[in-house]
Amino acid sequence: MAHPSLFIDALQYNNWSEEIFKQINQGGLSAVHVTICYHEDFQEMVQNVIDWNRRFEDYSNLIFLGRTAADVRKAQKEGRTAIFFGYQNCSPIEDNIGLVEVCHQLGARFMQLTYNNQSLLGTGCYEENDPGITRMGKQVIKEMNRVGLVVDMSHSSEKSTLEAIEISERPIAITHANPTFWHPALRNKSNEVLKALGESNSMLGFSVYPHHLKDGSDCTLESFCNMIADTAEIMGMNNIGIGTDLCQNQPDSVVEWMRNGTWTNDRDFGEGSASFAGFPDQPEWFRDNRDFVNISNGLKSIGFSENDVELVMGKNWLNFFDASFESL
Amino acid sequence: MAHPSLFIDALQYNNWSEEIFKQINQGGLSAVHVTICYHEDFQEMVQNVIDWNRRFEDYSNLIFLGRTAADVRKAQKEGRTAIFFGYQNCSPIEDNIGLVEVCHQLGARFMQLTYNNQSLLGTGCYEENDPGITRMGKQVIKEMNRVGLVVDMSHSSEKSTLEAIEISERPIAITHANPTFWHPALRNKSNEVLKALGESNSMLGFSVYPHHLKDGSDCTLESFCNMIADTAEIMGMNNIGIGTDLCQNQPDSVVEWMRNGTWTNDRDFGEGSASFAGFPDQPEWFRDNRDFVNISNGLKSIGFSENDVELVMGKNWLNFFDASFESL
Repeated sequence: MAHPSLFIDALQYNNWSEEIFKQINQGGLSAVHVTICYHEDFQEMVQNVIDWNRRFEDYSNLIFLGRTAADVRKAQKEGRTAIFFGYQNCSPIEDNIGLVEVCHQLGARFMQLTYNNQSLLGTGCYEENDPGITRMGKQVIKEMNRVGLVVDMSHSSEKSTLEAIEISERPIAITHANPTFWHPALRNKSNEVLKALGESNSMLGFSVYPHHLKDGSDCTLESFCNMIADTAEIMGMNNIGIGTDLCQNQPDSVVEWMRNGTWTNDRDFGEGSASFAGFPDQPEWFRDNRDFVNISNGLKSIGFSENDVELVMGKNWLNFFDASFESL
Repeated sequence: MAHPSLFIDALQYNNWSEEIFKQINQGGLSAVHVTICYHEDFQEMVQNVIDWNRRFEDYSNLIFLGRTAADVRKAQKEGRTAIFFGYQNCSPIEDNIGLVEVCHQLGARFMQLTYNNQSLLGTGCYEENDPGITRMGKQVIKEMNRVGLVVDMSHSSEKSTLEAIEISERPIAITHANPTFWHPALRNKSNEVLKALGESNSMLGFSVYPHHLKDGSDCTLESFCNMIADTAEIMGMNNIGIGTDLCQNQPDSVVEWMRNGTWTNDRDFGEGSASFAGFPDQPEWFRDNRDFVNISNGLKSIGFSENDVELVMGKNWLNFFDASFESL
């Protein structure tokens, strides 16, 4: 049965199971961008592709691999969900620019240039100094533009982000973050970045991860929706969408691995702290994919038109997918 | 300009260059199955994909990556050549069955289960003992059938080949070899194998590599064409094609590497010998791709109908591609 509305989520990293795929289906999601890599090198990432290939075989009634925007329309029509692969780091391309196209061939459609730390390509949002996009970074952005792999700067620092927007010949994305004017976390984005995103026809996906929310797990739906309205004032209505950063059913060991990978001997707590190291509780209005409709209703409640709700909930991402995933 | 006839070559391993791509074009080849791996593990094979991706970018007026039979028709129409990837060994899937689908995603359409030696999947044609298809081999054949990766037994031994034909639910191929009744080389195939190929709608590609030819480099075109006619008596007219095994412009170090890889401390001479270790000279009627038309004319000269010439020169392979490359 076709999904009644077009809902797209631009980031999830769940502990995947049949239960969650059913919830995605019940929630009416036609497309989800899923993270398949945080710290993995190329061949470790390939094993994650293999694990997904198995899921596509086992749950073909619910999900399939998305490669183009047409796959989103197909998913909506068939009442299934197109799964788009992304990396939260550039580790799978190692130091080999030729792997950019290979990763695209294996289904990758988003790649963050950095994950919190300095990478070979740019600077992460937790570094003290931000020298900007590196020599290799400039080459890789050009190659990503060519093959149709989206530059994602969600976990990158200010200068690197602004330079990536400038260097990239195609729009970029911040798939999951919120504005600092609402909640000044290191992972959230300045007004300057928001403006540059809007002016370049790039996208921001609003995160529901509590560390990105004003008042954390106690954030209200109304506050979240008002923040979206305020961001639209800065960026315009066509460059914003949802990117929940949902990490459903993950044990706390996973967030520890996200933060520490194999790069540190000291323990890094990222957005958490020694006394609050685990995953935070989700806000009560967004527990899992079935609550997507709450955001839609929340936007209506604060006065969004039907048309603007549709743009934010999925159509803007679909337009972005149309412009981004095909090779030049 | 469209190619006037449909010519397909089911195996080449040249020292690729613009010159050779131009010759393929002049020769009127609409499709060539190229070897991109002999001994490489997965990630080494990926580097070969990367090298080919660069060629596809640099010589897009002459070649492009072939994935389906439709790409052959497209190539013929446009006067270009669709390049189909194949492996002469199962080394790229290492011990991981999940890599079968990943290799198919990266363009592979043929994979030999063995290259001369025993592999994890079956037995090579130079082993003394041939226990047949292994436990993993049975699983991998099933997976290759599912994803649309052709089982190629060109360098395999008798029992393993017969078992592969039996186990595989889709037709298999021997992309490059000749019958032993004509020239009794270890790499050539028995009448029993030929019959089993024909009965299973599998394919044999006739090789022009001198070690597979009666009288080697001095083999006459007439003898080669009469051999094709005699094979058609055994296999029928619909299951035979060309697989030249052309290794143009390769230095002798390459054939040494093909034979020895990293598996032996002693030097192996394969089909050659200590006193004749290098690449043999091509027969004068097949120097490079521009001589493809000589085979076509040779078949006409010994009495093949126009229709049968078309079958052998390309249409049989095209029908096989139609049946083989799509996932089940």
